Amino acid sequence: MTTTYADSTATLDERIHRDPAAFRVLTGDRPTGALHLGHYFGTLHNRVRLQGLGMEVFVLVADYQVLTDRDVAERLTPIMEGLLLDYLAVGIDPERSVIFNHSAVPALNQLLLPFLSLVSVAELGRNPTVKDEIAHSRQAAVSGLMFTYPVHQAADILFCKGNLVPVGQDQVPHLEVTRTVARRFNERYGPLFPEPEALLSATPLLLGTDGTKMSKSRANSIALSADEDATARLIKGATTDAERHITYDPEGRPGVSGLVQLAALCLDRDPYDVAEEIGGGGAAALKRTVTDAVNSRMAPLRARRAEYARDMGYVRSVLRAGNERANTIADATLAEVREAMGGLL
Amino acid sequence: MTTTYADSTATLDERIHRDPAAFRVLTGDRPTGALHLGHYFGTLHNRVRLQGLGMEVFVLVADYQVLTDRDVAERLTPIMEGLLLDYLAVGIDPERSVIFNHSAVPALNQLLLPFLSLVSVAELGRNPTVKDEIAHSRQAAVSGLMFTYPVHQAADILFCKGNLVPVGQDQVPHLEVTRTVARRFNERYGPLFPEPEALLSATPLLLGTDGTKMSKSRANSIALSADEDATARLIKGATTDAERHITYDPEGRPGVSGLVQLAALCLDRDPYDVAEEIGGGGAAALKRTVTDAVNSRMAPLRARRAEYARDMGYVRSVLRAGNERANTIADATLAEVREAMGGLL
Repeated sequence: MTTTYADSTATLDERIHRDPAAFRVLTGDRPTGALHLGHYFGTLHNRVRLQGLGMEVFVLVADYQVLTDRDVAERLTPIMEGLLLDYLAVGIDPERSVIFNHSAVPALNQLLLPFLSLVSVAELGRNPTVKDEIAHSRQAAVSGLMFTYPVHQAADILFCKGNLVPVGQDQVPHLEVTRTVARRFNERYGPLFPEPEALLSATPLLLGTDGTKMSKSRANSIALSADEDATARLIKGATTDAERHITYDPEGRPGVSGLVQLAALCLDRDPYDVAEEIGGGGAAALKRTVTDAVNSRMAPLRARRAEYARDMGYVRSVLRAGNERANTIADATLAEVREAMGGLL
Repeated sequence: MTTTYADSTATLDERIHRDPAAFRVLTGDRPTGALHLGHYFGTLHNRVRLQGLGMEVFVLVADYQVLTDRDVAERLTPIMEGLLLDYLAVGIDPERSVIFNHSAVPALNQLLLPFLSLVSVAELGRNPTVKDEIAHSRQAAVSGLMFTYPVHQAADILFCKGNLVPVGQDQVPHLEVTRTVARRFNERYGPLFPEPEALLSATPLLLGTDGTKMSKSRANSIALSADEDATARLIKGATTDAERHITYDPEGRPGVSGLVQLAALCLDRDPYDVAEEIGGGGAAALKRTVTDAVNSRMAPLRARRAEYARDMGYVRSVLRAGNERANTIADATLAEVREAMGGLL
């Protein structure tokens, strides 16, 4: 059995552990509000893990995509600054990773044009995530920006030749468009882009303080920037139920189980064990446990965040440097695209 | 009657002649082949006229839009160089006008993103010119690039705040999308863009040597770059009919009438007079008249073209300088768009 053959049959996890430096990760957030514990356990934690393995991680703030479901852009500066503080606080290291916002990288956005020529309107309309976005949008009609979102995402990923994209199950169809764009470009103009692979998240959905998915757009989330008192208040007001004995039963008891899960994640323990330990202590004991767990787990992160917040000049310079690096890379990729396409394009 | 009231009821022609410097013209071509006499009498001549009135004319080479109906980009460099020679030969003056290609202006292309948020998928699908393009496209499926073409055109026009666009009747719906984008942007984010006006062409369609519309994609056109012998050969091979007596009857005798029209345009005469003068001389006399008329009219243009062709370094520097100026303007407009939209976008 040759090495090549062994490589081609190795699982993604095996290949990552064998040669992490062969991967460039593209990940990011839409700047719609403060990052919260759902983001922390869902993605931020994982980004820091991948960075620690020796991968170059590109963290995109997808500021144009705020326009897909909002009629008017809100003042983005405070949200951006909050995101930067969160990234630095969780341990994203600007020496090893690149934090940037795509509106600051014109050559990245320009890739949208050749990429749009590679995808049909029928394919864009079939994308289930777009369909879903359309159904949940605040806008009466679907905008051209929302419709072409997966192609813009292809530009976000391929401008830096990202080949590993951590995604939730619901984002897999989007990534499929990126893979299609890369494959068609390579077939038509010669090999230039990787077909990025999805790194599926193993973390279950984190529930908010009302027993539904923790979300920026609902008032049920505990922000990374919340202090100890605010955390205590939020958890005190969380939805539980009439049954005193605490159990972990996500289907039957979403409110209680969300709190148990949060404590378990913060303590790196099994949620069934956590629930059993609290048992007859009831909702009051559960909330005390969760509050202590969150506040202990977040204490070093919050201390770092407060420290960075005292030097916003540095924080802003991190974005500036990230954007500079992203622009250098995007300009080089656009030059390669032009050359591959036969000249002046 | 106040001046303001008088202004608002003045026709476009009146306003142009009263204050031509108030207009910035956006016009251009897709680089799909050599420019020909149809372009000369249809648009090139008019561009030089507008330039002569004191308007700043932006001449766009829409190189990305070659991808809307071609699967593979052809080598664009020789086509681009031919276009530049044609522009200079007809009298577009790089000191007063700006020649640029949109793929060289990333900030222009970036405007596509905020603009796409202002137009719905339903509106894009309704555009009759897009429908028509779709019907005539070589591609089996409609690409995302073709679908979003009118929004890209809005970026082409609005990046320099162009407010006057010479168009044929078939392009009016495209311009309507640009006007919609400008109006919605202004309503949502504050006044920034003009709503460009269409300057409808008065020149009738020029017929080719086969009696159908003169077109780059048919082999029926006389290129500006053709020499006297090639012109004579092309006209000699033109389609006429069995009736000896020459008349001008575009409906009934398209072949003969196309030749009469071409002679008339070159001679600045009425086509009915030209036809009557030839009368019983027949097709041979008609073809001699046309050949002489074209070659005389084109002689100074061809001489200038040949002169410029001896200094391709200068010709390329014209495009470079135009692109530089377009980039400066596009960067400034994008900065204004960001500010208007509330910050970092």
